[in-house]
Amino acid sequence: MLAAPINPSDINRIEGVYPVRPQVPAVGGYEGVGEVHSVGPAVKGLLPGDLVIPSPPSFGTWQTYIVKDQSVWYKINKNSPLEYAATITVNPLTALRMLEDFVTLNKGDAIVQNGATSIVGQCIIQLAQHRGIHNINIIRDRTGSDEVKEKLKNLGADEVFTESQLEVKNVKGLLSGIPEPALGFNCVGGNAASLVLKFLGRGGTMVTYGGMSKKPITVSTSSFIFKDLSLRGFWLQNWMSSEKAKECRVLIDSLLDLAREGKLKYEMELVPFDNFNAAIDKALGKQGSQPKQVINFQL
Amino acid sequence: MLAAPINPSDINRIEGVYPVRPQVPAVGGYEGVGEVHSVGPAVKGLLPGDLVIPSPPSFGTWQTYIVKDQSVWYKINKNSPLEYAATITVNPLTALRMLEDFVTLNKGDAIVQNGATSIVGQCIIQLAQHRGIHNINIIRDRTGSDEVKEKLKNLGADEVFTESQLEVKNVKGLLSGIPEPALGFNCVGGNAASLVLKFLGRGGTMVTYGGMSKKPITVSTSSFIFKDLSLRGFWLQNWMSSEKAKECRVLIDSLLDLAREGKLKYEMELVPFDNFNAAIDKALGKQGSQPKQVINFQL
Repeated sequence: MLAAPINPSDINRIEGVYPVRPQVPAVGGYEGVGEVHSVGPAVKGLLPGDLVIPSPPSFGTWQTYIVKDQSVWYKINKNSPLEYAATITVNPLTALRMLEDFVTLNKGDAIVQNGATSIVGQCIIQLAQHRGIHNINIIRDRTGSDEVKEKLKNLGADEVFTESQLEVKNVKGLLSGIPEPALGFNCVGGNAASLVLKFLGRGGTMVTYGGMSKKPITVSTSSFIFKDLSLRGFWLQNWMSSEKAKECRVLIDSLLDLAREGKLKYEMELVPFDNFNAAIDKALGKQGSQPKQVINFQL
Repeated sequence: MLAAPINPSDINRIEGVYPVRPQVPAVGGYEGVGEVHSVGPAVKGLLPGDLVIPSPPSFGTWQTYIVKDQSVWYKINKNSPLEYAATITVNPLTALRMLEDFVTLNKGDAIVQNGATSIVGQCIIQLAQHRGIHNINIIRDRTGSDEVKEKLKNLGADEVFTESQLEVKNVKGLLSGIPEPALGFNCVGGNAASLVLKFLGRGGTMVTYGGMSKKPITVSTSSFIFKDLSLRGFWLQNWMSSEKAKECRVLIDSLLDLAREGKLKYEMELVPFDNFNAAIDKALGKQGSQPKQVINFQL
């Protein structure tokens, strides 16, 4: 392996939060990028030196050498930036699938999301903009929120609101020239989820893919009956197991193309393996908001 | 008009709870049954003496004479019991559509619902049983809950639990021989909605069609991510406006057939028009649980 990120889900798995638990002792890591070191005599289409990623992502990427069946590995463009190659199969793919799988969106339509500063959130902004879809973003109140807004707008955000800005009777009155969103994304829960629901138009869908606030989602009866909202969930690991991995490989190529062209970007820090402990602390949020930690096994 | 019920929705409309408000002055009533008094020269297929219902239901059934276009009226079997003819297009049709429209259920599958004593709830029990679908029912704690359970079981309920009976760690452990339900119905909200969610199997759907407790629905993030639950809503009045009325007329015939055969029943009280005030009080619940009040304009 050349590099592998520390995703929040890796931490959750170690903490045992997830319902699917690896048998211990186990090697951590769920995605990453490697270089083919050597191949068996029956392997075709892969050569030493090829850049590969496990696709679908699979457990145990936090190690130097992995021996697995050829079918596990997907050969990617050799010019892919290492940190993007290592992280493309979880966050950006989640963003893309959620934009595609729940509601048919056309150019000019709109989406709304909370947790917009998360990497999935940033990917949603860029992928939506790339498709001509308006995006409305909700961030938590924090010092420096103006800079955060500026940063997200530079990525392609149409609107960015802090939660407190949305303490108004009619949040939709804050939108000008953007249609009511048909699709919303929630990775926070609590009040931030209620705000997504408020923005949604009649018949809209909110997809929950995380719960950063650890608070549940509360919905009024009238949201279902009169506003005809649908609430769904998305979890890539579960979605993947349903044999969708193959069609995703094409999408991974296109996402890596966007990354190479600078049209899909998010902050990462390539960390030498020796600094693993510090990287774990950062990934755990012990030092406040930090770029995604990607361990570089070569440094 | 021969007879028309006082539905909770009629009261809600008078109270202005619904987002769609009739222009006042207005005549109340949304469904009912009438007899054709006379027809214009261009009308074909309807004759004086025919039994008809407005289909889709439409406002203003609380009056003696209505003059409306032929297309409004649907001729039904003359042997239909008056009180069932007057009430078939809202509650039983809601039950039928909710069983059909959200999840494909096969014989041997299961559903779960709260508010099982409501007329929609009673219809769901009977229609589910008719299709060989197991039904799990939740009722509120009340004096006489044993009699209520007995009554619902006589209608075809497989299981009936009070909310307090379900204050256990694993509600599914209470089921024997019934598969995890793929579909749930909620007309209560609050804890009763959470109980429906607890019973649902992975990938299950909960449809909200009422909020009797006036409490919202609270859902954990993990219900969406790990359990892949979907939450939807159903409101007949809205659903009907989408040109589905025609296909419903066939269903109305089949529901009235079931009513005639005694396979679909629910308690009603035919009230002479002069007792309208008392009937309104009963419909408002001022005298505790009462059978559905159906005004008979002929008495």
